[in-house]
Parts: sequence; C-alpha cells; structure tokens
Amino acid sequence: MSTRTRLTPDARREQLLDLGARLMATRTLEEMSIDVLAEEAGISRGLLYHYFGTKQDFHEAVVRRVVERLHAATAPVDDPDVVVRLTVSLQHFLAHVRENETLYRSFRRAAYGGNERMRAIYEEARAALIDRIFDSASAEELGAFGIVDTAPVRMLARSWGAYVEDVVLSWLEDDRGVEEEDLLGSLVASLAGVLATAPRA
Amino acid sequence: MSTRTRLTPDARREQLLDLGARLMATRTLEEMSIDVLAEEAGISRGLLYHYFGTKQDFHEAVVRRVVERLHAATAPVDDPDVVVRLTVSLQHFLAHVRENETLYRSFRRAAYGGNERMRAIYEEARAALIDRIFDSASAEELGAFGIVDTAPVRMLARSWGAYVEDVVLSWLEDDRGVEEEDLLGSLVASLAGVLATAPRA
Repeated sequence: MSTRTRLTPDARREQLLDLGARLMATRTLEEMSIDVLAEEAGISRGLLYHYFGTKQDFHEAVVRRVVERLHAATAPVDDPDVVVRLTVSLQHFLAHVRENETLYRSFRRAAYGGNERMRAIYEEARAALIDRIFDSASAEELGAFGIVDTAPVRMLARSWGAYVEDVVLSWLEDDRGVEEEDLLGSLVASLAGVLATAPRA
Repeated sequence: MSTRTRLTPDARREQLLDLGARLMATRTLEEMSIDVLAEEAGISRGLLYHYFGTKQDFHEAVVRRVVERLHAATAPVDDPDVVVRLTVSLQHFLAHVRENETLYRSFRRAAYGGNERMRAIYEEARAALIDRIFDSASAEELGAFGIVDTAPVRMLARSWGAYVEDVVLSWLEDDRGVEEEDLLGSLVASLAGVLATAPRA
C-alpha cells in the first residue's frame, strides 16, 4: 500500500487535528496559529482555512481533540477495586497534564478568562470526567465509602475536580518533596474525605 | 463639625477607593471605568486620573481595597473553638462573595485569564486567607484534627481554597436544595478531610 494514498477530506481533517493537538502540547493557544500548523503539515494556509474556518474555530477543534484525548487517557481501567480504578485514572490525568502543561495552563486561562466557548468546553470536559467516576462505580461501591449519589454530592465532586487540578498544577511547579505515588494516594483519599461531608439535599 | 471639611489628598484617595469598591460590587472590572467613578463621586475625570494614574492602576487599587475588605470581613472571631472560628470566617466569606458576586467573578476571570498583576493580587489574597487559618490555630488545635503544619499540608490547604471558591460559586448559581448552614458545615469538615490525606514531606 502506498503511504501517499489520497485521503478523504474528513480523514485529512482528522490527521491535521491530531497534528494540531501534538503541536499544542508545548504551545499556548495564542502561539498556536494557522501559520504554525500550515508550516508543520507542509500545506498551504488556504487549505487549512478550508478545513477549519476561523482561527477561533480551529482553536476550538484542536482543544476538543485534546479534551477527547484526556478523556480517553483517563478512562477507568478494568479492575474490580474502585480505589485502583481511581488511582490509575488520576495517574493518567497527572501524566497528561505534565506532557501538555503549556497547553493545559493556556486552555485553563482561556476558559476562566472569559472566552465563553472555551469555558463551555472546559466545564463540559470536567463534568464528564467527574460523572464517569459515578457511572463506573456501583451504588454498593460508593456506599462502602459512605457516598450516596445526590445532586449536592455531584456538586462537591465537581469542585473536588477543581481541587485536584489546583493541587496537580501546584505540585508540578514545586513538588515540596512529595513523591508522585504519595500525591496520588492523597488525591484519591481526598475524594472520599470531601464527599463524606456532603449535606443532605 | 462641617461635613465639607477639606480632605487631604490621601484621605480623598481613600474615600474614592471606598466608593470604587462599593460601586464594583455589582460591576465587572470592564464596566468599572474612571468615568463611572467620576460621575458617582461628582468630580472631574482629570482629578481622578491625578489620584489613580492609569486605568489599570485604578483597577488594581480598587481590587486591593476589595481584597482588604474580604480579609477584614473574614478575620477569625474571638472563640476558643477552632471549628467555630472557621465556620464564622467561611460564613463571612460566603456573604462577601454573595454581596460582591459580579465583581468577584470578574476579578477571578481577570486573575485566571492572564492578567499577571491581578493574578498576583489574587494568589496573594488566597495565600493570606489560608495562612491565617494556620496562624490563628495552635499546634495542639491542629493536632486534634490530625493536622501537622508542613509544606505539603499548606499546598493542599491552598488548593482547598480553590475548592471552597468553586463550591460557593456553584452553590450561589444553584443551591441544589442545600441550606447555607449545611453548606458551611460541609466546607469546614472538608478542610480536615482533605488535610488528613496529606503525604509526608
């Protein structure tokens, strides 16, 4: 088979999104222009605009791809123990943030900084990550930690996501002598610690 | 005494900052212009620029005033029980955010959104609020909750601040049927819950 097979427009777009996501790992959103991608992909800017439309559309498409990758990378592993599943997911989350730190901080800045479309993608992504914890655990498993799945509990769990993100970014800046394994253990335990305080609805 | 006493420039500046802080409670940073303050204070724009310099300087001065007020409003009360002190401080934090919600969200957007000077004020303010919890409790009081004051514990405590902020803003948007008193109880308990997971340094 030739590697020069003509790609369909959809396949070509997918390929460019993957390239964009890889390129963004070490760039901020502002640094990730159509020009950079055109140069790296060796195609014309005109063709890229054809695939992606405006710069904002392009940023959104690439950020969505990055978010899909984060979601896939942190998928629960097949283990009967909910603590193991959560630990592995958090380990993959930490690895993903570390590998894409520049992008991650830039995306977070855009999301918090008033870019409404980035904010929507960001909140949606966080909600999906947190909801998956509940969806992948049985009521019995949650019950073993004293957790009942209610609206207040989901609210606290999402804010726990903000806590985890803040801890991971602080730790990447200065680990304070804390080993990764110990950090992960602390984060896993903190979920039960936080949810145990949930008020009745 | 006449209320028309001539104020010193410093006293006048203080008065204008207080007015600015009050006006900002229901405005975003973008909406809080020199023009608005000039109109409300009944003085000329030129005089305001004389007191505050650039728009960015003015925003910073007003935000610092707001932060000082938050810090003062949440000061630990004189009670021998650390749980009572923390509960009252959180209650005042919640009330302050509620009263200044538009400003608070706007300040947070500016801080996270890449305005480095706003970010510095914001992080400094959060660190000061968290550090005060430790400074106002004895080692014995902390020890009663299994807390030892170490660098990793301070790191988690600051991220707990991000958690509290996220919970409070979510709850103000949609209280999920949770009463304020129960929310405060949950937040207080979550601090011990989080810090109990701290890894050894």
